[in-house]
Amino acid sequence: MVDVMSHLVRRRKDHTLEAPFYTDPDIFDVDMDVIFGRHWLFVGVEPDVAEPGDVMVVDVGKNSVLILRDDDEEVRAFHNVCRHRGARLVHEEKGTVGNIMCRYHSWVYNTEGELIHAEHMGEDFDKSCHGLKPVHIRSLEGLLFICLADDPPDDFDAMAEIMGPYISPHNIRETKVAYQHDLIEPGNWKLTMENNRECYHCGANHPELTVPLFAYGFGFAPEELSAEERDHADKYAATLTDNHKEWEAMGLPSREVDRLDDMVTAFRAERLPLAGAGESHTIDTRRACRKLLGNLTNAKAGGLHFWTQPNSWHHLLGDHAVVFSVLPLDAEHSLLRTKWLVHKDAVEGVDYDLDNLIGVWMATNQQDSDLVGYCQQGVRSDGYIPGPYSPHTEMLVEKFSNWYVERMKSHLSESRSVA
Amino acid sequence: MVDVMSHLVRRRKDHTLEAPFYTDPDIFDVDMDVIFGRHWLFVGVEPDVAEPGDVMVVDVGKNSVLILRDDDEEVRAFHNVCRHRGARLVHEEKGTVGNIMCRYHSWVYNTEGELIHAEHMGEDFDKSCHGLKPVHIRSLEGLLFICLADDPPDDFDAMAEIMGPYISPHNIRETKVAYQHDLIEPGNWKLTMENNRECYHCGANHPELTVPLFAYGFGFAPEELSAEERDHADKYAATLTDNHKEWEAMGLPSREVDRLDDMVTAFRAERLPLAGAGESHTIDTRRACRKLLGNLTNAKAGGLHFWTQPNSWHHLLGDHAVVFSVLPLDAEHSLLRTKWLVHKDAVEGVDYDLDNLIGVWMATNQQDSDLVGYCQQGVRSDGYIPGPYSPHTEMLVEKFSNWYVERMKSHLSESRSVA
Amino acid sequence: MVDVMSHLVRRRKDHTLEAPFYTDPDIFDVDMDVIFGRHWLFVGVEPDVAEPGDVMVVDVGKNSVLILRDDDEEVRAFHNVCRHRGARLVHEEKGTVGNIMCRYHSWVYNTEGELIHAEHMGEDFDKSCHGLKPVHIRSLEGLLFICLADDPPDDFDAMAEIMGPYISPHNIRETKVAYQHDLIEPGNWKLTMENNRECYHCGANHPELTVPLFAYGFGFAPEELSAEERDHADKYAATLTDNHKEWEAMGLPSREVDRLDDMVTAFRAERLPLAGAGESHTIDTRRACRKLLGNLTNAKAGGLHFWTQPNSWHHLLGDHAVVFSVLPLDAEHSLLRTKWLVHKDAVEGVDYDLDNLIGVWMATNQQDSDLVGYCQQGVRSDGYIPGPYSPHTEMLVEKFSNWYVERMKSHLSESRSVA
Repeated sequence: MVDVMSHLVRRRKDHTLEAPFYTDPDIFDVDMDVIFGRHWLFVGVEPDVAEPGDVMVVDVGKNSVLILRDDDEEVRAFHNVCRHRGARLVHEEKGTVGNIMCRYHSWVYNTEGELIHAEHMGEDFDKSCHGLKPVHIRSLEGLLFICLADDPPDDFDAMAEIMGPYISPHNIRETKVAYQHDLIEPGNWKLTMENNRECYHCGANHPELTVPLFAYGFGFAPEELSAEERDHADKYAATLTDNHKEWEAMGLPSREVDRLDDMVTAFRAERLPLAGAGESHTIDTRRACRKLLGNLTNAKAGGLHFWTQPNSWHHLLGDHAVVFSVLPLDAEHSLLRTKWLVHKDAVEGVDYDLDNLIGVWMATNQQDSDLVGYCQQGVRSDGYIPGPYSPHTEMLVEKFSNWYVERMKSHLSESRSVA
Repeated sequence: MVDVMSHLVRRRKDHTLEAPFYTDPDIFDVDMDVIFGRHWLFVGVEPDVAEPGDVMVVDVGKNSVLILRDDDEEVRAFHNVCRHRGARLVHEEKGTVGNIMCRYHSWVYNTEGELIHAEHMGEDFDKSCHGLKPVHIRSLEGLLFICLADDPPDDFDAMAEIMGPYISPHNIRETKVAYQHDLIEPGNWKLTMENNRECYHCGANHPELTVPLFAYGFGFAPEELSAEERDHADKYAATLTDNHKEWEAMGLPSREVDRLDDMVTAFRAERLPLAGAGESHTIDTRRACRKLLGNLTNAKAGGLHFWTQPNSWHHLLGDHAVVFSVLPLDAEHSLLRTKWLVHKDAVEGVDYDLDNLIGVWMATNQQDSDLVGYCQQGVRSDGYIPGPYSPHTEMLVEKFSNWYVERMKSHLSESRSVA
Repeated sequence: MVDVMSHLVRRRKDHTLEAPFYTDPDIFDVDMDVIFGRHWLFVGVEPDVAEPGDVMVVDVGKNSVLILRDDDEEVRAFHNVCRHRGARLVHEEKGTVGNIMCRYHSWVYNTEGELIHAEHMGEDFDKSCHGLKPVHIRSLEGLLFICLADDPPDDFDAMAEIMGPYISPHNIRETKVAYQHDLIEPGNWKLTMENNRECYHCGANHPELTVPLFAYGFGFAPEELSAEERDHADKYAATLTDNHKEWEAMGLPSREVDRLDDMVTAFRAERLPLAGAGESHTIDTRRACRKLLGNLTNAKAGGLHFWTQPNSWHHLLGDHAVVFSVLPLDAEHSLLRTKWLVHKDAVEGVDYDLDNLIGVWMATNQQDSDLVGYCQQGVRSDGYIPGPYSPHTEMLVEKFSNWYVERMKSHLSESRSVA
């Protein structure tokens, strides 16, 4: 097996990782253990399980997690595994249950995870020792995060305290999932995340997304600008300051918070202005949904970018929200799950046109998936050498990579000292 | 590599195995070496190679075995590999040959496995050193078992002596294969075997099979029965005793023989009454074939259950027999091969309707395959913990698991003391 | 991991290799490192990149190599990997470029491999340190060979000096690729090569190829010949001597050169007479293309067999040439790439009929692929034992196997003494 620690230690700052981090199945297993097994993962939204008895299944590597709303309206998560012979309990991604019955030998669990019925087990059998194995779950204003470890990172509350006021005006709990799309990207999950952490590639690759997004919002090299471009950049900077003030006056926290590499539960947020009509991530830059989110009365709420590590990003707009989670499949494939949320009372065909709602990000996701695939093909090669990140437009990729390296080092040195 | 022995030693009695036994490719390789490489495997029936020159190919893991009836009517088995450049010799599952010619360089072997022709090999070449490599094969009243090891377990005769009288009245040698079906189950071979070793799951999953089968025949928890159910159970017990006496008077040994975990060549048999009309494993419980097996004159011969370890079970009825073999494909996939046998003179469409003959077990196999798949998905998970077997209806699963653990321990400690 | 060296050391001379050399993924990785990573590989012909800006992509294992003709008409090779984030640069097998632009962040390289444009990288960034990583490439009279190692074997020139005069009359540089076919053979690359290194199997398997080819050209067992066959063999030997004299008088070197196991860059060549009309590898043995190659004026130029190790063979005829390269995919699959070359001015439908041109080798390749697959299936088996090569018709297979074993030993003992 590859010596992960020595690769981590010799990692060259401000450069992409060495090839095995993107290709080696053994390092993938360590990633799943350390990163996806011991950090908070974004997996969905409360509206996925809106009513008591609603269940959603999320597969994280070899683990299948059952997320449900119990009879007291509390959202809970359990391993989706029967305690008798190990059968998977729920097979559909979404459904509604009274209790949860295993199809194999009809063991029955209630929505609190307690085993309430099991035949033939004899008089010495103690049902109370055979409840479903719980999984930690937290809701950040309706965004659901799980942690598979027994002891989750303890800074979730710190993130929630900062991010709550940013997210709450969009009132995720009062939305519905208008559409969900699963895309299997042909690359390691870190390539998917790195792709998301910069917009250096946007101009050449995202003709739809760059209609509502200002390129300057994601950095630039000042020395490369013409006088005219410098003028635009200055104007953008002024607009940004003005907008932040206006939005915060409206009760919409907007200024950048960047905790991408100094927290275990790492995140970043900023509310950015939109181009054109300035309303939404649509090809005509106007709102896609007539009903606005939460108590918003003005569609021109900009776009709140909210990123978490290891596996999510979110665009919270005035009229809708798009939330993305990355679920690794193997060293060279990752699932990107995208959900488009609109106000729960919005009616398709009346308040929004679905194609218009999802168009920009359906196109953008596919473009990004292609780029991720090109990198996956390239990093396998003996011709691949870790390359330099741009100091102007890839500094947040560096933060992601640095966070990853530090988290891995921390857990691996911990296990060493234990062993 | 996982430490198999330590997993074996710490196995918790009366509980399912730890996850790696169902999922780990290294343990799968040990299974193929120890269990499938050194025990007697059921692979087919003499009617598969009814006439001299008939050949059948059975793949066991990476090995391909040629089973044929030679010119003196003896059934023989060889590795299906040319001794020249290693080409596979026979490519179809069934066929008829005069001699066996390799397609690559036309080396020719006779049905005794001797190399009888090879061009260009020079004057020093000794054909007698290049015959096909034989594989041990035995027939138990027409049921064919092979062993890939040089020294097979020596208790095959002990099993044959006990089981011969049970099987011979059904005269397998005078049957024909009316239908054969290969089903790839999405699970480890042990999950397929464990599924077969209990009927706790039958009530909830096998609507067809539970028409001819009495549920009480596979155990129950006495303390859970209502007064009425206890009455039914008592009646069933009385019927069983009566039937055993009647059948044995007709020359049909019937009483339970259980050697599932105290022999290397482990087996179990019992003749059980059938429900309804009491004739066969059909949806109307009547015989599927007008011509009865062997010299039987009464279709109400019950159902002889005959199980062997590691890989088979059989239902020998008055009018037909169904024989099942499990051939592992990889840690998470297994081939279930089912053959339906009727009297060799029975004519399809006249003596039997094929859909009626195979209906119950075609449905049952698929239902079992689904259940095996649910378990395979579940045991991968960190949420899986070995679960308890029912003391009333899963005691034979425990015997299978115990046999497996003991066989593995025995061979692995042997190789250790050798090494 | 399997101990490769001990398998190499105990290899039995004049016998096929032990099973792991054909099946083990770890040995496959060593093959890719030692054999395909450090030897000259045939990958195509100069006409594949006829004009400045023409590019061809060849994948060798996990490496993707960009072969192009630069603006000064020099043929160059580079790793097909961007020096920024590692993206694959060129995605089509063939194309034409001005410069090479990465799609991800628009870095631009010229055809000399220099990085000429990269935005956002800051003022300290040195473009001259981020050019494409070169790959060694050599042309042997138009046949292109690459070597992925930093220090390629130094005997390429020695081969070129000997083989130049054999190949040059066919003037490969003045041909075009009339057709190219990729066939994935279901076997280890060594089985594909071994299959090519003998014609013992031709009589029974290649009904098309044996029309133009004389069987005697590939050896025979003299003691097995009838008086009549001996007479034919004697006549063939006389014809061969006469033809060699005639062809050499025409300026066509013809006599056998066999350096298959005494050079690092191993090869063999011989010009052999053709049967029937004696013109070409066609089913009617007549030329497939009216325009002859190079300055040839007589189609009866025989067939120049040119083999290289590890991965090619070539048939250079009077009217066309067929060139074959083997590119391993995994331990059990190999890509056979075949190109049919005709004079660059030849016009399809006028000078040649494509089906006629490619018919014999399209059929022959598929037949060989089937045979390779039979061997791959067989060598997996415990029934496989390395078998003897014919001393009369498989001595060149022995040379291939011996070369392979010696090359592996040499590199593995080198790395040991280094480590």
